[in-house]
Amino acid sequence: MSLLQGIHGPEDLKNLSRADLKTLAEEIRSTLVETLSVTGGHLAPNLGTVELSIALHRVFNSPKDIMIWDVGHQAYIHKLLTGRYDRFSTIRQYEGLSGYCKRGESPHDYFGAGHGSTSISAALGFAVARDRRGRDENVIAVIGDGSMTGGMALEALNHAGHIGARLLVVLNDNEMSISPNVGALHHYFTNIRTNPAYVRAKARFEALALRLPMGESMVEFANKARDAVTTVGTPGLWFEELGFTYLGPIDGHNLDVLEATLEHTKSLNGPILLHVITVKGKGYSPAEENSTKFHGVAPFVIETGLSRKKSSTLPYSDVFVQALRQLARTNDRIVAISAAMLEGTGLVKFQEEFPDRTFDVGMAEQHAVTFGCGLAAHGLRPVVAIYSTFLQRAFDQVLHDACIQNLPITLVLDRGGIVGEDGPTHQGVFDMAYLRMIPNIVVMASSDEEELRRMMRTAVEHDGPVAIRFPRANSEGIPVSTEMEAIPIGQGVGLREGQDVGIIAIGSMVYPALEAADMLAHEGIQATVVNARFVKPLDAELIASTALSVPHVVTVEEGCLMGGFGSAVLEELEARNIRTPVTRIGLPDKFIEHGGRDFILDKYGLSAEGIADRISKILGKAEPTPVSASVAG
Amino acid sequence: MSLLQGIHGPEDLKNLSRADLKTLAEEIRSTLVETLSVTGGHLAPNLGTVELSIALHRVFNSPKDIMIWDVGHQAYIHKLLTGRYDRFSTIRQYEGLSGYCKRGESPHDYFGAGHGSTSISAALGFAVARDRRGRDENVIAVIGDGSMTGGMALEALNHAGHIGARLLVVLNDNEMSISPNVGALHHYFTNIRTNPAYVRAKARFEALALRLPMGESMVEFANKARDAVTTVGTPGLWFEELGFTYLGPIDGHNLDVLEATLEHTKSLNGPILLHVITVKGKGYSPAEENSTKFHGVAPFVIETGLSRKKSSTLPYSDVFVQALRQLARTNDRIVAISAAMLEGTGLVKFQEEFPDRTFDVGMAEQHAVTFGCGLAAHGLRPVVAIYSTFLQRAFDQVLHDACIQNLPITLVLDRGGIVGEDGPTHQGVFDMAYLRMIPNIVVMASSDEEELRRMMRTAVEHDGPVAIRFPRANSEGIPVSTEMEAIPIGQGVGLREGQDVGIIAIGSMVYPALEAADMLAHEGIQATVVNARFVKPLDAELIASTALSVPHVVTVEEGCLMGGFGSAVLEELEARNIRTPVTRIGLPDKFIEHGGRDFILDKYGLSAEGIADRISKILGKAEPTPVSASVAG
Repeated sequence: MSLLQGIHGPEDLKNLSRADLKTLAEEIRSTLVETLSVTGGHLAPNLGTVELSIALHRVFNSPKDIMIWDVGHQAYIHKLLTGRYDRFSTIRQYEGLSGYCKRGESPHDYFGAGHGSTSISAALGFAVARDRRGRDENVIAVIGDGSMTGGMALEALNHAGHIGARLLVVLNDNEMSISPNVGALHHYFTNIRTNPAYVRAKARFEALALRLPMGESMVEFANKARDAVTTVGTPGLWFEELGFTYLGPIDGHNLDVLEATLEHTKSLNGPILLHVITVKGKGYSPAEENSTKFHGVAPFVIETGLSRKKSSTLPYSDVFVQALRQLARTNDRIVAISAAMLEGTGLVKFQEEFPDRTFDVGMAEQHAVTFGCGLAAHGLRPVVAIYSTFLQRAFDQVLHDACIQNLPITLVLDRGGIVGEDGPTHQGVFDMAYLRMIPNIVVMASSDEEELRRMMRTAVEHDGPVAIRFPRANSEGIPVSTEMEAIPIGQGVGLREGQDVGIIAIGSMVYPALEAADMLAHEGIQATVVNARFVKPLDAELIASTALSVPHVVTVEEGCLMGGFGSAVLEELEARNIRTPVTRIGLPDKFIEHGGRDFILDKYGLSAEGIADRISKILGKAEPTPVSASVAG
Repeated sequence: MSLLQGIHGPEDLKNLSRADLKTLAEEIRSTLVETLSVTGGHLAPNLGTVELSIALHRVFNSPKDIMIWDVGHQAYIHKLLTGRYDRFSTIRQYEGLSGYCKRGESPHDYFGAGHGSTSISAALGFAVARDRRGRDENVIAVIGDGSMTGGMALEALNHAGHIGARLLVVLNDNEMSISPNVGALHHYFTNIRTNPAYVRAKARFEALALRLPMGESMVEFANKARDAVTTVGTPGLWFEELGFTYLGPIDGHNLDVLEATLEHTKSLNGPILLHVITVKGKGYSPAEENSTKFHGVAPFVIETGLSRKKSSTLPYSDVFVQALRQLARTNDRIVAISAAMLEGTGLVKFQEEFPDRTFDVGMAEQHAVTFGCGLAAHGLRPVVAIYSTFLQRAFDQVLHDACIQNLPITLVLDRGGIVGEDGPTHQGVFDMAYLRMIPNIVVMASSDEEELRRMMRTAVEHDGPVAIRFPRANSEGIPVSTEMEAIPIGQGVGLREGQDVGIIAIGSMVYPALEAADMLAHEGIQATVVNARFVKPLDAELIASTALSVPHVVTVEEGCLMGGFGSAVLEELEARNIRTPVTRIGLPDKFIEHGGRDFILDKYGLSAEGIADRISKILGKAEPTPVSASVAG
C-alpha cells in the first residue's frame, strides 16, 4: 500500500516523517500524472502546489480551519488529502469528483469556484462572519499570481486591508496565469523574485522562519521578517500599502520553510499576504517545459506528453483564428484581445503572425471589453476572443461600453453551450439569453466552419457590437470557400421543407436538427428545418412564414431555455399574433453537471435522436404523411 | 454678458487673464448652483472640478486631444466649456443634455460612461489605437479616488503599466467616492495627503512645477520631481510599482500649479498618474459641509441647501431600511452590505443602529456580492443593497458565487425600472431578464410598501439567493402591518376578477394595472388582475388558471420586453400547452432615454391610461359585457 492510500484525512499527514512526506509528494505527483493522462484535467497547476497543499494541511486543521482555493483547478491535492483519493480516478467524469472545489462534495470544500479572483472576497466574508460569531478558526485563501490581477481580487485586497480582519492570503506565484502572465504586477512580482538583493532577502527571510522558535511573539516575528528584507527595499510594499502584512517570498517546494512560515502566521493579527514561489508543472518534465500546454490537458501519453486524441477535423477555435488571420491580412484595423487565454482561444496563432496587433490583458475580462471599446471608438476593429462563460464577468461592460455606444467590437464566444468536463461553473449556456436582451448587439451562432468564417467577415464589417458563438467541438469537416462572404444581418436560411413540423435551430443544433429530420422522415414525419443563424436580430420573416406553414414549431438550442433563443421565437410569434404551437428544446432551469459534452447533450435530448424522439412524441397522433410530400434540401 | 457666455469652445479660454479665469470659475460655480437648484443633478462633484476642468481645457486641445471622464457626472464644466452653455439648463431633462458624457452629444465627448472605473480601460484603448494609427494626440483619463478602487480600474492600471503607452491619468482625489471613501487605498491616499513629510514634499513638487521652464526635458522634470519627494519616501510608489510615473500630489484648486504640471506632462512618455487634491462641493458651503448629500441632488433652495421636494409618503428606500432594521433587531445574523452607496440605498440609517453589522466595501460591486456569499456560507444573512443598474457589474458573481452554491444572500435592487433623469446608463430595466435566467435564484418585485416589507422577511428566511426589486419612487401611502408576514415562495395573488381579459402585472405595474382595470370597467371591459409578485419561480398555477379563464392575457412590467417577465409567462403557457393569446406590455428593445420617470413611463405606455388604452385597442371588437359580470377585489 502506498502512503497516499493511507491518507484518509489531514490528520493522517501530521505524524509523517520528513522522508515519508517526500515519498508522499512523489506519490501524489505520480497519481496526478497517471490519472490525468487518462481523464485529462489541470495538470501543471497541481504539480506546482503539491508541497504547498501538504504544508497547509499539516499546519492547519481542515475542516475546522477554512481553506479557499481560487479558481479551484489547483485543488486536486487538497482533494487527495481530504478523503477523496479513492474516487480520484473519477475526476471530471460524469457523476465523479468535480475538477474544482465544490460545496457539498466534501466538508473541506468551503467555497466553490471556477472563475478566477474570487477567493479573497469569499475568505474575507468567512473571516468577518467568524469574528461576528465569536469563533477562532483560521481562514486561508490560496490565489495564483494570475488571479491576483483580476479586478475583484484587488477590490477584495482593498477592503480586507481596510477592515483588518485576521486572514491569510497565500499568493501562489508561478509566474503564470494560464498563458504566460502579463501586466505590471507581474513585472513587480518578477522583480521581487529575481532582483539579487531580493534573492538575498528571501534567503534571510527563510532562514529566519526556520530559526525562530514557534510561539515567539508573532508581532516580533513580523517585525524581524520585515527588518530582514527592508535593508534592501521592501519587496511587498505594494501589499503593505494596502494594509497587508507581507511575508516572503519563500520557496513553495521546500516543506520545512513552508511549514515554519505558515506556523508563524497563525497568531499574527490582521490580513497577511504570504508570497510563495512555485514552479508550474514541477516534477513532470513535459509539463515543466511547457506549462501553458499542460495547464489543462486532454488525455495524453505519459512518456511523451503528447495528446492521445487525434481529430480529423479542426477545432472551431482553429477555424476562428484562421478566418481572423485571413481578414486581418487585408484590414490592418483588426486587432485581437485575449484575457489570459491566448492558447485556449487559439489567438496564439494570431499573435505569431501579428504580434503588434495582439493584446493579452491578463485575467481581466472587464478591462478586455472596455479596452476594446476604446480601440473601437478610435478607429480600430477589435476582436475579443473569450470563452462564453468568462464573458459573464464583463456583462456590464458589454451592455454599457459596447452596446449603449454602439461601437464596432466583435466578441467571439468560444465554448458556447456545454463545455463538458469542467462542469457547471464553465458551461457556456447563458450567453444567448443574457446577450439578446441588450439593445444594439447582433448575436450570431454558427452551425459549421463555413458559416463561422462568413460570420467573422460579417462581424468585422458591421458597424456595431457583434457576438459570435460556437461550441467546444471540432468542426464538421465540410469544404470552405476561400473568400468569406458576409451574411446580411438578420438573415437565416431554410434548409429543408416539410409540412408536419417546423424545426428552427440555432448554431450547434442545426446539424443535429437536420439529422433528426432525416430520422423523422423515416417515420413519415416531414420536417421543415430552418437555420436561424441570428439570435438577434431574428430573421422574423423567415420564422413567421415557417410558423404559418406548419402545425407545430420546435426550436432547438444548446443553451438555457429561460430567456433563450426559443423565448425569442415565442416573443416574435406573440408580437405577430401567430398562434402556431411552439415547443422549445434546450437546457432546463438548473446548473448542468459535468461529464463529456456528447454525453451531456444526449442526456438533455440535444442529439439528433433526442430531437427526433421529442418531436415524434409531440406529434404522437399525427397521421403519417404521404410519401409524395415535398422535401427540399 | 458674463465671461462664461463668451466661451463657445476651449479655444476661447486660452487668452483669458488670470483675473478673468478667477471670475470665470466663480461664474461657473454660480451657474452650477443655480441650474442644479432647479434641475437637480451632481452638484458636489462638479464644484470640486472647476479649476481642473479649466486647466485641462487650457493646456490641452480638445477635441483633438481626447479627454475621458470616469463616470461622467463630474463633466458638467467640461460641457460648459465645450459649447454647451446655451443648453445647460436642459441638463438631465427630457431631450436635454445628458447628465453624463455621451458620444454624439458633442465631439468633445469621446467616451460615455455612467458606471465607474471604466475610464482608464477606455483611455488605454484610445492611446493604443492612436499609436497604431501613427497619430499624436494626448489621451487623458480623469478618475476619482472612489472609482480608482473599482476592480476594472486596477485591471487597467496593470495593463497600462505593462504596455507603457503614453497616457495621462488624472486622479481627482476628493477623499470621497459617493459615500465617504473606504478601503485601504483610501488610507494610502490620505497618508500621502496628510503625512507632514508628504505635505512638505507636495510643496516642493508644486514649487518645482512652477519654476521649471516649459520645454525642459520632461524626463529630467520627472526625475527632479521624484527627487523632490523621495527624500521623505515615495508617495506614489504604489503607482510606480504598477509602471506609472507618479506626479503630485498637487492642489486641484490652484490654476497656476495645475496648468504648469499638466504642461509638463505633455512630452513625458509612458503612462503618467497625476494626483490632484480637490474639495468636493468647493465654493458652495452647504455642499462643502455635506458633500455626500450634495453628490446628487434633487431641486433645492439655494440659500439653505434644503430640498424643495416634499413628499407625503416614504421613498421605497426608506421602507426597505425600516424593514431591515426591524428584522435585524431579532435576527443578529443579518448584516448589510453597500458598494459606496450607504446614502443612496438608505443603509446609512441601518448603519446608525448597527454600525458593526454594516459593510461599505467601496465602489466594488463584484466584491460586494462575493464577500456577501462568504458571509452567507459561514452562517450570516447578508443583505446587499444596490441599485439595479449597478448589479450588472456583479452578474457573474451572482450567478457563480450566490446561485451555483445556492447561498442565502439577499440582493435588494433599488431603482428597478425607469430611473429617470440619469438616463440610459442608469435605467434598471434589465434586472428581471438577466436574473430570471439564473437557476436557484428567487426574484420578487414588490407592488407597495406592505409587500416590500413582507418580501424582506421572505428573503431573509429563505435558504437560498433572493433578489427583491422596487422602483425609484415613493411608496403608496397605505397602512402597513407591524409584523412582516413571509410570502410563500412563488405565490402570486389575484386582485380582481373579470372575464374579458387577464392582466398579469409585476411589481411597480400592479397599481397602474388595477387603475387600468377600473378605467376599462367604465368601457364595459371586465379585467382580471393578478399580482404575480414572483418573476421566479412564477406562480404557474395562478398564471395558468388565469390564462384558461380569459380570452386574452396581458402582461405588464416596468422592464425590458426581451427576455423579461412577460417572456417568462409566454414560456410557462407554452410549456403547459395553453394557447390563450398573450400581449406583453413593457419597455421596447432600445436604450431608454433620460427624462422624468413618470413622463418616460407614460411615453412607453406604462401608466394606467397607457395600459387601459392598449388593452382597449387589443380587444377592439369585444362586445361590452353585462353589468352583472363578476368583479372581485
